[in-house]
Amino acid sequence: MTPEKRSMLKKLLVSVIAATAISTTAIADDKVYKLKLAETWPSNFPVFGDTTKNMAAMAEKMSNGRLKIRVDSKNKHKAPLGVFDMVSSGQYDMGHSASYYWKGKVPNTLYFTTMPFGMTAPEQYGWFYHGGGMELMEKVYSEHNVVSFPGGNTGNQMGGWFRKEINSLKDLEGLKMRIPGFAGEVLAKLGAKPTNIPAGELYTALERNTIDALEWVGPSLDLRMGFHKIAPYYYTGWHEPATELQFMINKKKWDSLPADLQEILRVSMRTAAYDMYIQSYHASAENWASMKTEFPDIKVKSFPKDVMDAMSKANDELLVEKAGADPLAKEIIDSQAAYMKKARVWTNISDRAYLDSLDGK
Amino acid sequence: MTPEKRSMLKKLLVSVIAATAISTTAIADDKVYKLKLAETWPSNFPVFGDTTKNMAAMAEKMSNGRLKIRVDSKNKHKAPLGVFDMVSSGQYDMGHSASYYWKGKVPNTLYFTTMPFGMTAPEQYGWFYHGGGMELMEKVYSEHNVVSFPGGNTGNQMGGWFRKEINSLKDLEGLKMRIPGFAGEVLAKLGAKPTNIPAGELYTALERNTIDALEWVGPSLDLRMGFHKIAPYYYTGWHEPATELQFMINKKKWDSLPADLQEILRVSMRTAAYDMYIQSYHASAENWASMKTEFPDIKVKSFPKDVMDAMSKANDELLVEKAGADPLAKEIIDSQAAYMKKARVWTNISDRAYLDSLDGK
Repeated sequence: MTPEKRSMLKKLLVSVIAATAISTTAIADDKVYKLKLAETWPSNFPVFGDTTKNMAAMAEKMSNGRLKIRVDSKNKHKAPLGVFDMVSSGQYDMGHSASYYWKGKVPNTLYFTTMPFGMTAPEQYGWFYHGGGMELMEKVYSEHNVVSFPGGNTGNQMGGWFRKEINSLKDLEGLKMRIPGFAGEVLAKLGAKPTNIPAGELYTALERNTIDALEWVGPSLDLRMGFHKIAPYYYTGWHEPATELQFMINKKKWDSLPADLQEILRVSMRTAAYDMYIQSYHASAENWASMKTEFPDIKVKSFPKDVMDAMSKANDELLVEKAGADPLAKEIIDSQAAYMKKARVWTNISDRAYLDSLDGK
Repeated sequence: MTPEKRSMLKKLLVSVIAATAISTTAIADDKVYKLKLAETWPSNFPVFGDTTKNMAAMAEKMSNGRLKIRVDSKNKHKAPLGVFDMVSSGQYDMGHSASYYWKGKVPNTLYFTTMPFGMTAPEQYGWFYHGGGMELMEKVYSEHNVVSFPGGNTGNQMGGWFRKEINSLKDLEGLKMRIPGFAGEVLAKLGAKPTNIPAGELYTALERNTIDALEWVGPSLDLRMGFHKIAPYYYTGWHEPATELQFMINKKKWDSLPADLQEILRVSMRTAAYDMYIQSYHASAENWASMKTEFPDIKVKSFPKDVMDAMSKANDELLVEKAGADPLAKEIIDSQAAYMKKARVWTNISDRAYLDSLDGK
């Protein structure tokens, strides 16, 4: 090798090494993060299961494959109501479920799904994103090593499926009903026996008389579950005006992600949640339209006024009790009440007045 | 240099070059794409302007700086109603505006913002994403080298600001009103003189009697514009139940982007649009609450029944005319009507029945 050649080779080597040093930064950023998500729902569950798939697909595509999210249904992990624990402990990195399922463990998780006689979907998203809701949710979850985000809205839920018509308060006494969250507590105050049972076990529970009645979601999901074959009375809603599911992430895992992947995950979850609200609206409209012809035996009913009034009164009394017993519960209840009061005036002058003005058209 | 050293150096060089070759792929992907967006709104315009900033910030953060979107307001580009042309020609890569502003150029762009007596926001998002709306919008825009996406919903808009009370159809005759889209055509049929004027020029137009009345958005944006000082009668809405703004991208530019950046842009626009719907809801609720104390002279009114009936009849007749004159217009009108019919039944049994059941609470 001549000195010239040696010198050229050295220069080339130096420049190649320099280029490699720069590109090494890029390579380090290109690390693939594999996350495992546990969802409460059975495999291939419509709407709810579409939401985790939608979120994971957006995250993977936007990150050019650097984020890979494996979704395990309850058929795999066998613990539909254990998702919070599995995410909190780090057994899973992420979860998809509903916040009010954890009220037995962490009472204040109750308030981040929906409340009886509470906010509609746009009102509640307003509260989450502009009215202090996200900050209050963080207060409740951060102690448990979990970051919680809205996970998809079902819209206004139907009041549920009943074997027998509800004609008076007496018909609620001793009624065994699957109804989670605060609505279950309201019914308990009126003498019913509320319980929570995960989606995959509902039909069997109804069939075997473990329960007399149940609420699940609404026409977007209920009709294919076959409840109407056993319990043909289908009541309109009062108890879940805007059920928001929940994405959860293990906080340590979240903190360990690079900033761009955190943003990709945040936006994927946020969009998948909004998307589910619209998908639910669409599926409800489609299924409601076909209900009359496909399932002519379903009897759509509304609760009598005295039952509604008693539920509303029990609801108010329970809120006062909860607020009196825990300062953070009070902070959340007061925040929701103040926000709803403002937002409802606008809902009434805008969407409701508009819909009323078109009545009969 | 000994033969051993030379051999080692060669091996090192080969392995470094190999590493560089791999990382070069990563470097190529790390190219920065700078996009210019023209918005119809003035600088720092609230809500609408927040939406372009929100979208650009998400895209930049999720792409780790590979997407940089410069937002030019109308103060910079001076052509608030020229955004479509500038995006179509490639003078700008992206735009943020409203589809119905282009009806004079491309008549079928009219249908992708909102329609009088038409769908509410969740109904219309259902139509866009599940009812064929996006596909119909693509049919209209692709011929013009533009890809169009939902760009943020204002929610139900107020019917506008009037100097004088509208007591009968006679009061509409000769009325010079800023009101864009199909609603303008409806009012023209009833003898009014509709026109479109961009946001930045509205107050002056009202002050100089260029117009007698105007509709802009609703309490989320109207109150800070000061219209009430000149035109204190504020009417409830009929004409824009769910005004959806629009993101546009030059199709050639869109096609030239790598798949991950396309997805980042698509999701950023989709999320920013949903986010605007919620921000508008929030701002409307806040501002409506403070309106009574801050602006006590505003008189909130609804149009008399005979005026509403005449507008509804004119609307129906115009839709028949449009559908008869153009097969694609007919396809869009029929698609919207069929979707709304299904969705409205669900809206009435869910949100509306729920709100009605709480009346007075």
